[in-house]
Amino acid sequence: MIPKGFRAAAVEAQMRYKNRPDLGLIVADSFQASAGVFTQNICQAAPVLWSKNRIARGRAVLVNAGQANAQTGRGAGDRCLLSAKAVADRLGLVTDEVLLASTGVIGQPLNIEALLSAVPALIKGLSRDGFDDFSRAILTTDTAPKTAWAEIPFERGHSASIWGVTKGSGMIAPNMATTLGFVLTDAAMEPKLLRSILSQTAESTFNRVTVDGDTSTNDSLFIIASGSARSEVITGGSDADVFKKTLLKVLDSLSRQIIRDGEGATKLVEIRVQGARSREEALLAARTVAESPLVKTAFFGGDPNWGRILAALGRSGADFDPYRVDIDIDDLAWVRHGLIFGREMDAQAAMRKKEYCLTINLNNGPGQDRAVTCDLSYDYVKINGSYRS
Amino acid sequence: MIPKGFRAAAVEAQMRYKNRPDLGLIVADSFQASAGVFTQNICQAAPVLWSKNRIARGRAVLVNAGQANAQTGRGAGDRCLLSAKAVADRLGLVTDEVLLASTGVIGQPLNIEALLSAVPALIKGLSRDGFDDFSRAILTTDTAPKTAWAEIPFERGHSASIWGVTKGSGMIAPNMATTLGFVLTDAAMEPKLLRSILSQTAESTFNRVTVDGDTSTNDSLFIIASGSARSEVITGGSDADVFKKTLLKVLDSLSRQIIRDGEGATKLVEIRVQGARSREEALLAARTVAESPLVKTAFFGGDPNWGRILAALGRSGADFDPYRVDIDIDDLAWVRHGLIFGREMDAQAAMRKKEYCLTINLNNGPGQDRAVTCDLSYDYVKINGSYRS
Repeated sequence: MIPKGFRAAAVEAQMRYKNRPDLGLIVADSFQASAGVFTQNICQAAPVLWSKNRIARGRAVLVNAGQANAQTGRGAGDRCLLSAKAVADRLGLVTDEVLLASTGVIGQPLNIEALLSAVPALIKGLSRDGFDDFSRAILTTDTAPKTAWAEIPFERGHSASIWGVTKGSGMIAPNMATTLGFVLTDAAMEPKLLRSILSQTAESTFNRVTVDGDTSTNDSLFIIASGSARSEVITGGSDADVFKKTLLKVLDSLSRQIIRDGEGATKLVEIRVQGARSREEALLAARTVAESPLVKTAFFGGDPNWGRILAALGRSGADFDPYRVDIDIDDLAWVRHGLIFGREMDAQAAMRKKEYCLTINLNNGPGQDRAVTCDLSYDYVKINGSYRS
Repeated sequence: MIPKGFRAAAVEAQMRYKNRPDLGLIVADSFQASAGVFTQNICQAAPVLWSKNRIARGRAVLVNAGQANAQTGRGAGDRCLLSAKAVADRLGLVTDEVLLASTGVIGQPLNIEALLSAVPALIKGLSRDGFDDFSRAILTTDTAPKTAWAEIPFERGHSASIWGVTKGSGMIAPNMATTLGFVLTDAAMEPKLLRSILSQTAESTFNRVTVDGDTSTNDSLFIIASGSARSEVITGGSDADVFKKTLLKVLDSLSRQIIRDGEGATKLVEIRVQGARSREEALLAARTVAESPLVKTAFFGGDPNWGRILAALGRSGADFDPYRVDIDIDDLAWVRHGLIFGREMDAQAAMRKKEYCLTINLNNGPGQDRAVTCDLSYDYVKINGSYRS
């Protein structure tokens, strides 16, 4: 399943957690191109600043879980350099070829001693079978590893595929990757094209999911192409379209896995907004509904309280006539012309499903967009209300 | 305590609740001026639309709890007319002198039969002692009535005072009154000046509190001046300043009572932001921190997790250097230059208080503003996750 040209490993570095892998490494043994997207938060973690400046050359990714290395002061950059150097020296790379990503508590100095002590074992452990361990090493409050794979159905040429792994459960909001994600492919892509395709596909997948509206300081999504599958570099045309479609599929799967594993989540709800004056207003409306605590608790309680949805739409900034709004739950015509239309018991039944889609038509223009969210449950409060989760 | 010139009453109309008063009335027996501010939500309840058009003449206020009369279709306006007419006819007023306010579930047709049946007893019950009953009749998920009173310390002239009553616990967000509020005074105020003073004082009190960021469809805040205390109408000068200061005190008390009684709330936290580039950015920053689910659950857990505050500031839209941010909890210097400074145990102790103030200095300009919020607890989810609260 893993595209050709990559190895991975994970170890228990005990940087903050005990008795679980918390440091992972992926290396591209052959390297063709890489690209990344990063958090838009003004407070950017040291590994984000490090990786942003080196993304186009990055062929190795070192990731730790438990400490975000964000707001850790001027020593933070040195710790990044030491980490990257330790890996680069042992792999025969230059430090600028090592990307870094961290996730965990903000404001705690990175336990660099523990990290450096663990690097030799990490390098030694690199193998084609190391990806399962890696996918577990990057988790924090996540309850399960999250991976996705798809073959790229090129019309001609060697077979190639895309594999991705992600983590994220809280501090998830639509503004960039909103989590860590690492995507590998053995296709060969012209670097500028790869960058552009990653931005576009991340925008419609990772940037459309929300658990709590809280954008993280550490969000990073990397893609590395090994080029191992075919010699010809894709520069555009139908092969680029096929690649983009496949990447979209992988990122869509990964981003939905994040929502399904959202802190305390019991439901996944996709909010599709149509008929807005513009795409921007559609997105505003979708996000406001997706982040409304009253709507999210109603999802949790399975309460078809459509008035809360109307109220959230009404404060979203999108313009519309309240008495022209239609809402469907999956294929149930629930609200028509701003008034209840479907039977309450049918709406209740629809909201009992683990996953469903609300389609909101504002009937005010051509704009459409969406957001994918989860419900707000007791367990969200439990996970985040307990001391220093 | 109640300013001269007003009577009130409440009855069990059984419009939605049983065995509790749910319909209240206030009447100004002498009338001098009135003013109001209303929700900015695009979905505005029928009583909001009714009262907006009649606010300057309103000398009676009919309020029901349990049904919002929002998104109830074209019949909603007729129901408003019938309600106002029933009260006006019996009081010898014209319908345009009766203001209406409703709070409760959105989308349920107003139980107009129950309301009309209850009006005779309501009118009969009007008295100078009816304000306690009134303050209870307007509650929904509130756990306690909320009133405030202050004497207006005019330098000369008759003594006068301001009394206010409010309700609100969930669907509370800073955009207009975010709740129902009724304020009475026996001072005499030039109507345009009264309007301007109400807008200004509501902006810095009711419009700075948030429970869940969800702006209601029914938010209304009225002030009625009976003019019973002094004959001279205030048109400006130091008397207007004194009046404004007193009104500010009353509204500040009322709006804080809402936060203290916020759904599931165990803490009241004031977020003061200083040193922003502009007042607008200060308000953005204060609201983003005040509405962040991760920050609010940390308040609930008493966890001095300052990284979550930095992360919320960083996505607020305010511009600043993360390493120039200072944060105090009350008088504890907690974060300096974007890094932890105070002792963790001191921060824990400060956060154990029922009420405290976070002062955030972005050190990037002259802008300052604030937001007042509560924590996010299990009980918020319980109250709103149970069927049709």
